[in-house]
Amino acid sequence: MRTGSQDMTSINARRASPRTRATPGTVAETIPYAWPWDGVVDLDALAVLTVRAPGPLPDGPWRTHLDALVEAAHRNGVRVIEVITHPPGADPVGDSGLPADGDLVVRAQGWSGFFGSPLDATLNRLALTHLVLAGHWLEIGVHSTMRAANDRGYECLLAADACASFDPLLRPSALSSIEMSGGIFGAVGASPAIIDALNGTTAPAPTTGD
Amino acid sequence: MRTGSQDMTSINARRASPRTRATPGTVAETIPYAWPWDGVVDLDALAVLTVRAPGPLPDGPWRTHLDALVEAAHRNGVRVIEVITHPPGADPVGDSGLPADGDLVVRAQGWSGFFGSPLDATLNRLALTHLVLAGHWLEIGVHSTMRAANDRGYECLLAADACASFDPLLRPSALSSIEMSGGIFGAVGASPAIIDALNGTTAPAPTTGD
Amino acid sequence: MRTGSQDMTSINARRASPRTRATPGTVAETIPYAWPWDGVVDLDALAVLTVRAPGPLPDGPWRTHLDALVEAAHRNGVRVIEVITHPPGADPVGDSGLPADGDLVVRAQGWSGFFGSPLDATLNRLALTHLVLAGHWLEIGVHSTMRAANDRGYECLLAADACASFDPLLRPSALSSIEMSGGIFGAVGASPAIIDALNGTTAPAPTTGD
Amino acid sequence: MRTGSQDMTSINARRASPRTRATPGTVAETIPYAWPWDGVVDLDALAVLTVRAPGPLPDGPWRTHLDALVEAAHRNGVRVIEVITHPPGADPVGDSGLPADGDLVVRAQGWSGFFGSPLDATLNRLALTHLVLAGHWLEIGVHSTMRAANDRGYECLLAADACASFDPLLRPSALSSIEMSGGIFGAVGASPAIIDALNGTTAPAPTTGD
Repeated sequence: MRTGSQDMTSINARRASPRTRATPGTVAETIPYAWPWDGVVDLDALAVLTVRAPGPLPDGPWRTHLDALVEAAHRNGVRVIEVITHPPGADPVGDSGLPADGDLVVRAQGWSGFFGSPLDATLNRLALTHLVLAGHWLEIGVHSTMRAANDRGYECLLAADACASFDPLLRPSALSSIEMSGGIFGAVGASPAIIDALNGTTAPAPTTGD
Repeated sequence: MRTGSQDMTSINARRASPRTRATPGTVAETIPYAWPWDGVVDLDALAVLTVRAPGPLPDGPWRTHLDALVEAAHRNGVRVIEVITHPPGADPVGDSGLPADGDLVVRAQGWSGFFGSPLDATLNRLALTHLVLAGHWLEIGVHSTMRAANDRGYECLLAADACASFDPLLRPSALSSIEMSGGIFGAVGASPAIIDALNGTTAPAPTTGD
Repeated sequence: MRTGSQDMTSINARRASPRTRATPGTVAETIPYAWPWDGVVDLDALAVLTVRAPGPLPDGPWRTHLDALVEAAHRNGVRVIEVITHPPGADPVGDSGLPADGDLVVRAQGWSGFFGSPLDATLNRLALTHLVLAGHWLEIGVHSTMRAANDRGYECLLAADACASFDPLLRPSALSSIEMSGGIFGAVGASPAIIDALNGTTAPAPTTGD
Repeated sequence: MRTGSQDMTSINARRASPRTRATPGTVAETIPYAWPWDGVVDLDALAVLTVRAPGPLPDGPWRTHLDALVEAAHRNGVRVIEVITHPPGADPVGDSGLPADGDLVVRAQGWSGFFGSPLDATLNRLALTHLVLAGHWLEIGVHSTMRAANDRGYECLLAADACASFDPLLRPSALSSIEMSGGIFGAVGASPAIIDALNGTTAPAPTTGD
C-alpha cells in the first residue's frame, strides 16, 4: 500500500530502528507481576489511555493522580489518548466537549473503548503495544476497555489510584479480578511508580524465567 | 444481496411475521430489573450462550443448573450456542472437542466470545437479540462476553446459578457489578425462573413507565 | 441493558410497531435484480450513505444526482449518513470539515466505511437495514463500503449516476462486478428511480418465487 | 497479560531479535510498485493466504501456480493460511472439509476473510504483516479480503496467475483497480517471481526515495 504511506513509513522505520527510548526494567511494585512482562519500558510503544464516561468529572484524589500521570506522559513525549465511553445507544457521534490538549480523542459506541471506534486502528498505526489505563469509571468503561485491550494482545497496566470507582464497595474486587490467576487481564500499579518509569527510572526486571 | 439469500429470507420472514412464540411478561425475580426490559419473552429472538474456558469442567451444582437450562432450551426449540473462550494468543484455531449436541459452536480469540469470532454475525443472521449467558468462568469469559454483548445492543440475562466462579471470593462482586446502576450490563437471574420462561410461564411485566 | 435505553426503546418500538412507512414494491429498473429483494421499500429501514474521499469534490453530473438524492431523502425523512473514507494510516481522527446539514457523519479508518468506525453500531442502533450508496470514489471507498455492508447483511443499492469514478475506464467493470452472479454485493440503480421510491412511487415487485 | 503468554513471548522475541530471515530487496516485476514498499522480504513476517469459495475448485492453470506457490511457502517455512469465504448468511460455522496439510484454516462470515473470523487476531498473534493473496474467486473473496487487509495496514501482494476469475471478462479490470493510483490496495505480481523471493532471490529495491 503506497498512498498514505507516510505514516506506515514511520511505523516501519520505528520497528526497524534501534529502540532508543527503551529502558530495561519494569514499573515498581505492580501486582500480580512485574509489568511489563517483557521487561522493557519503551516510551515509543507506550500509550496512556484516559477513559471518560458521560457526566461531570467525579471529585476525589484520583484526579490529582491522573493529572500528574498525563503531565508526565506529555513531558516525556508519551502518547495520551482520551477514550470516550458511554452506554450503548446513547449519542453515537458528536464532539466530546472535553479538553484534550493536543492529545488524540476517540469515541467508542459503548463501554469498551474498542467498540465502534478507531482505537485499535490508531494504536496499530502508531505501533503502540503497551497501555496504561486510568480514568472513570473503574468498573465500567476502564474495565471493559482493559478486557478488550488484553484480548487484542496489548500489554495493560491499570493505574489504580488514577481511577474513579462508580461504586466504592466494588473497587477492591474490580482490582482483584484483574490480579487473579497471575494477571489474566494485565497488572495493577500506582501512578507514582508509573511516573518514575515514564521519567526513565525503572525497577529491575525479575530474573526468573517465564 | 441475493446469493445465499435463503437465510436472509428466513430472517426477514421472521421479522415480518407475527411473533407467534412471544409471551408478554418477564423472567421472575431478576435483579436489578425485570428482564427483558421490553417485557416480552420471545423464544424466536432468544439464545442461550454456554461459555467455556480451557481445561476440564469444574465440579459443582452449577453444572446441574446449566444442564437443566440447556435441556429446557432444546425442548422448547431455543437456540443454544457454545462459546469457546480462552486466553488471547493460545491455540487460535482448532476443534473444541466438546460435545455440542447439534448446537452451534463458536470459538473466540480471547476472553470475549465476540472477539475474532462469528458470534455477532451468527446472532444477527438468526435475528437473535436476547441472550441468556451461563458457563465458566463467571468473572472471565462469561463477564467479558456479557459486556461485549451489551455494547452491541443485545439484551442480556446472566443465569447466575449456572455459572462457575474462578475465584469464589469474587463471585458476589462479579454479580454486583452487573446489577449496579440499574443494570449497566444487563440483569441477573436464576435458572429455575429462566426455565419457567422457556416453558412459557412468565411473570407480569412491571407497569411502571420507562 | 437499561441505562441509555431510550434509544433501544425506539428501536424495539419501531420493530414491534406496524411498518407505516413501508410500501410494497421495488425501485424501478435496478440491475441485476429488482431491489430490494424483500419487495418492500420501508423508509424507516433505509439510509442513504454518501461516501467521501480526501481532497476537493470532483466535478461532474454525479454531483447533481447526489444532491437531488440527498434532498429527496431529507424531504422524506430518510436518514442520510456521510461516510468519510481515506487511505489507511492517514489522519486517523479529527474533524471532517464538510457540511453535514444535520446528518450523521462517521469517519472510517480506511477505505471501508465500516473499518474502525461507528457505522455498524449506528445503523444497528437506528434499525437501518437497507442502504443506498453514492459518492466518491466509486471503485475505492464506495465499493469497499458496499462489500463490507453486504457481508454484514445489509441490503445494498448503488446509485450509479450519483458516484464519481476515480478512473472512468474502470467504471463499467466496477458496476459489472456488482451485477455479476445475480447481485453478489447488491444491485445497481439510477437516482431518478430511487428518488421516486423515496417519494413513495415504486415498481411492482416481481412475482417469481425466490 | 501473562496467562497464555507463551505465544506472546514468541512474538516479542521475534520482534526484538535480529531479522535473520529478512532479505533486502523486492519481488521482481510487481505492478505498480516494487513490493514490498519497505524493501525487505522477511520470511518471518510473511503469510500466503489461499482464499477459497464454496463449490468445487475451478479448473485452469491458476491451480498449478497456486500449488507451486504453496509448495514453495512450505519448503521455506512460510506460513500458509487457508481463508474460507462465502456469501453472507450461508453456513456460518462448521468444518471446511478441505485438505489443509497442517496449515491454519480460518472461516469468515462473508466474502471478506476478515469478517467474523479469527484472521486478524491470528496474523497479529504471529506478527505476520506482509500478505501474498491467491485463490478464488479473484473479483469476490480475494478482492474483498485484500481490500480489508489493506485497510488494516497489511502490505499486500496479489499473485495474479494463482487466482481464478469468476468472470474472465472482469479479470483485467479487477487487476487494474488494484494497480490504480500507485497501488491503493497493494501490488500485483506473478507466482514465479514470488517463489523466487520465497527462495531468497529478490530484485534490488528501488533507490528512489519514498
